[in-house]
Amino acid sequence: MGEALNGLKRSIMCGDVREEHIGKKITVMGWVQRRRNLGGLEFVDLRDREGILQIVFGDKINAEAFEKASKIKPEYCVAVTGEVVKRESVNPNMPTGMVEVKGESLKILSESDTPPIDIKENAETAENLRLKYRYLDLRRPDMQNIFKIRSKVSKAIRDYLESTGFLEVETPMLTKSTPEGARDYLVPSRNYPGMFYALPQSPQLFKQLLMVSGFDKYFQIVKCFRDEDLRANRQPEFTQVDLEMSFVEQDDVMALSEGLIAHVFKEVAGVDVKLPIKRMTFKEAMEKYGSDKPDLRFGMEITDITEAVKTSDFKVFKGAIEDGGSVRALCLKGGATMGRKDIDRLGEFVKTYKAKGLAWIQLKEEGIKSPIAKFLSEDEMNAIVSTMNAETGDLILIVADKNKVVFQSLGALRLDLAKKFDLIKDKNEFNFTWITEFPVFEWSDEENRYMACHHPFTAPMDEDIDIIESDKEHARAKAYDLVLNGEELGGGSIRIHNMELQERMLRALGFNEEDAWKKFGFLLQAFKFGPPPHGGLAFGLDRMIMFLAGTENIKDVIAFPKNQNAFCYLTEAPNIVDEKQLNELGIGVLPKENK
Amino acid sequence: MGEALNGLKRSIMCGDVREEHIGKKITVMGWVQRRRNLGGLEFVDLRDREGILQIVFGDKINAEAFEKASKIKPEYCVAVTGEVVKRESVNPNMPTGMVEVKGESLKILSESDTPPIDIKENAETAENLRLKYRYLDLRRPDMQNIFKIRSKVSKAIRDYLESTGFLEVETPMLTKSTPEGARDYLVPSRNYPGMFYALPQSPQLFKQLLMVSGFDKYFQIVKCFRDEDLRANRQPEFTQVDLEMSFVEQDDVMALSEGLIAHVFKEVAGVDVKLPIKRMTFKEAMEKYGSDKPDLRFGMEITDITEAVKTSDFKVFKGAIEDGGSVRALCLKGGATMGRKDIDRLGEFVKTYKAKGLAWIQLKEEGIKSPIAKFLSEDEMNAIVSTMNAETGDLILIVADKNKVVFQSLGALRLDLAKKFDLIKDKNEFNFTWITEFPVFEWSDEENRYMACHHPFTAPMDEDIDIIESDKEHARAKAYDLVLNGEELGGGSIRIHNMELQERMLRALGFNEEDAWKKFGFLLQAFKFGPPPHGGLAFGLDRMIMFLAGTENIKDVIAFPKNQNAFCYLTEAPNIVDEKQLNELGIGVLPKENK
Repeated sequence: MGEALNGLKRSIMCGDVREEHIGKKITVMGWVQRRRNLGGLEFVDLRDREGILQIVFGDKINAEAFEKASKIKPEYCVAVTGEVVKRESVNPNMPTGMVEVKGESLKILSESDTPPIDIKENAETAENLRLKYRYLDLRRPDMQNIFKIRSKVSKAIRDYLESTGFLEVETPMLTKSTPEGARDYLVPSRNYPGMFYALPQSPQLFKQLLMVSGFDKYFQIVKCFRDEDLRANRQPEFTQVDLEMSFVEQDDVMALSEGLIAHVFKEVAGVDVKLPIKRMTFKEAMEKYGSDKPDLRFGMEITDITEAVKTSDFKVFKGAIEDGGSVRALCLKGGATMGRKDIDRLGEFVKTYKAKGLAWIQLKEEGIKSPIAKFLSEDEMNAIVSTMNAETGDLILIVADKNKVVFQSLGALRLDLAKKFDLIKDKNEFNFTWITEFPVFEWSDEENRYMACHHPFTAPMDEDIDIIESDKEHARAKAYDLVLNGEELGGGSIRIHNMELQERMLRALGFNEEDAWKKFGFLLQAFKFGPPPHGGLAFGLDRMIMFLAGTENIKDVIAFPKNQNAFCYLTEAPNIVDEKQLNELGIGVLPKENK
Repeated sequence: MGEALNGLKRSIMCGDVREEHIGKKITVMGWVQRRRNLGGLEFVDLRDREGILQIVFGDKINAEAFEKASKIKPEYCVAVTGEVVKRESVNPNMPTGMVEVKGESLKILSESDTPPIDIKENAETAENLRLKYRYLDLRRPDMQNIFKIRSKVSKAIRDYLESTGFLEVETPMLTKSTPEGARDYLVPSRNYPGMFYALPQSPQLFKQLLMVSGFDKYFQIVKCFRDEDLRANRQPEFTQVDLEMSFVEQDDVMALSEGLIAHVFKEVAGVDVKLPIKRMTFKEAMEKYGSDKPDLRFGMEITDITEAVKTSDFKVFKGAIEDGGSVRALCLKGGATMGRKDIDRLGEFVKTYKAKGLAWIQLKEEGIKSPIAKFLSEDEMNAIVSTMNAETGDLILIVADKNKVVFQSLGALRLDLAKKFDLIKDKNEFNFTWITEFPVFEWSDEENRYMACHHPFTAPMDEDIDIIESDKEHARAKAYDLVLNGEELGGGSIRIHNMELQERMLRALGFNEEDAWKKFGFLLQAFKFGPPPHGGLAFGLDRMIMFLAGTENIKDVIAFPKNQNAFCYLTEAPNIVDEKQLNELGIGVLPKENK
């Protein structure tokens, strides 16, 4: 059964014991990291949340404790009382390495089987095993550290927002299914059989209603849900730092957000974020980096060489230009020595982004080497090299296609080359940038129509309001994303706060009036009653923690994550439920063939 | 469309303007509370989250602004710039009542239809209208105040727990359906058609696993869900302040909880909670107050008069005693003058609690008046009066039945009388008490078996471990509730942290081994790996806010609440969803007759 505490109190955490405690009698409680018998003594490393402390048991210290200690195994949970003494063989690598505790009494609080996974820093264990025994995986000091960071980040966020006048308001989890987003998780209603709640993808409409309510500044750290096929760094439930402000314009929300981020990074990681954070329009980001979340820790910008080749008869270039596309290129410093096979691989890589091929020019000591040299005049070739600012030793990589394809493929190639050639010099850099002037709409090949790029409640830029019906391609929004090292950290917008404009926007997105009112009537209705101008932003908390904890796996920052199929190895959720439960809800499971 | 801000910045909140600002030019933004034309001037009360400020517009102040102001209506959203001046007719009832603003320019940011509900303090409006137009209802200053309190309470809780070493850890919302609680909300899985997640009724098992993980002290302010028929003060989703600690015993968790509560009540309401909070066992609470959440703001305790009547032949008393029950009574001071009809009503009242009747004795000036006098000897009557410490002028109210019925009916009667006779003198009193030594099990008539009184993970008291199979009626648990003014504010327990004992407990609750492992295997398994002794507690945050905000309606403390049928008047959730969504989930809606 293990021994009971019976009034025994812990006096200090293992990891907190220092030289100043020498001579004091302390009681610590924790887990056995390891035990060694050396020279007739039992040395036990005892671990708790704060660190590891060495305990020494000996026949002459206390015979009964020594006897017990000789039987304990890794991960036994124990309580030890004894005097702190100076350690003979100091361990400078441990904060507690100057001291040890003479084990005068020992309680075995509970025993442990041999753990199926290693409980130490950076242990490499199969992920499904880690997830199944998550409670053991979480004992690892590096995992514990991540959740300390997470707790600190939440605290820093709240402190900052509360000190700047934000109210934390909770919004519902059981709400209404809305279109124009990802797939909703549904919750069947028992009171209204055949009807369903949806779990929120974000509290977007509720936070806007809170602005209509006059709450002025709202925030919430809140769970959101998307039933999507999970990419590597997605989870079905994730946490959002959600905020909204009234009587503001874009710059106000951005300034507040910058202050918040600077506070959090300073508090938690000691990082000074230089304010104001630089800004770049969506257009510039696409043209220079082929991405709306450019990684600015290295250069190698995309360069437009259309002008240089506009007179060329080379059909690949000519065709792209005539099609309304362009010819653009990257210049890889020192790439002139790359072998043919490696270059071919880059060609294969860009094809996965729908590029038809990758042209290239190597500027070798002995002269230009390029499979397209034969299609270009010397003038054209020189114009390319000069536009690219290329020097001897460089490799120019060219894609000619529709702009969308050019940007996507060269943007991806740029990141791929940065990884391959280690172009990011300062691994500790936090390079922030705002991306602004996002398009209002984006074309969906899947749906074969324009959809909202951000969401249907985002305000168009004043100068583009008139073109939201007529020129969807070019209408820009008061939307902004905060990008860090090539990842989106958060995004937001100024919202529409006018019923007529909101109705126009929904029409432009293909809703007829009846549908618009059925789905969003409560928001449209609210706009009849003096809505304030408002806007906001949401940060992905999980992503933020990943940066601050230095991990690239989202599962590391979520205590009980799910796998790629949204399955929990630990609890085995989802699972079957009683027929009775389904009957109460008025739903049934369809036979497999119905699917 | 309303005018745009175009760079105009608010300089101060309406409610914050004071005499110190006289002579300054300010810009305020908010909603028109009312407008009056007086002596050729337009007086506008402008409201924001912080309060109301008077603006005066006049032809001579600014003709254009005056012209615009003469058209604005209640709930228009406007921005005003002007100089703060001393007010001629001071209003001492308003914090801003010493000043007003000369309206030099006015922007109408958006117009408003006439609001369908009154936007002022303590407005009385039909609840469904309030819920439908919640965004207007929330504009009321008293509602805004509640959410300021709520935000402050959350902050105070977090500050206290973080300063005492607790880590905030988020637990999953999409989890496994577990029995032995209320009805779960289910979420169909798309990846595993026919399988379901459940929304958590509490993070109980996860927080215990976090203790097994060595997190030591965990807290979370978290949404929980119960799909129950809603009583007046229940909501399908509610918020819990959830905490758990390792290496602790009951007194440690109680002491921490007391510190937390004292901090919150002091910070938010300036109330000094006297520590330590008094304690009472479940048994004493039932015997004296007929309730496990006794209201101790008044006395009128239940008194056992079985001894006084044990020799009586009166068949009501005799039968109850022979049945193993008892005869108990309340003494209502001054009740001797109560009329027959009113006493009969009390009799009807106790019958709703299954009592067969209510015997009574009035101690009038002229002597005893009692319908049961004829069944009792004078000695017995005197013994009752003396046991009750009753005096002339009092009314003794007696129930004889099984103990459970006696306690329930007299407990309810006690509260009813307190309300009728205004026995609670100090309406501002916060009277806290702990209830301890709860039973491990409670009998469920509905299920016709013993169920867990708290939950199946609660540890029995050491001295009662041996009787959890043999004497379910009397086995007591290491469980404790914190009760405030007759309401449960929170509750918790020391948990079982031993696999064998946990298995025994599940068996005692009627689980066979297979079921136990299927449902709770991940917890039982975790207990194989050195689980620490641990315990915790959860407070109902909504209830806590109700106390601090002084409201008895839980809907007042939730921004977007649902009605008794778990329906949201605002968004009209739950609602129908696309057939396509259901097909993807592999579920179908049963025809009505299948129900």
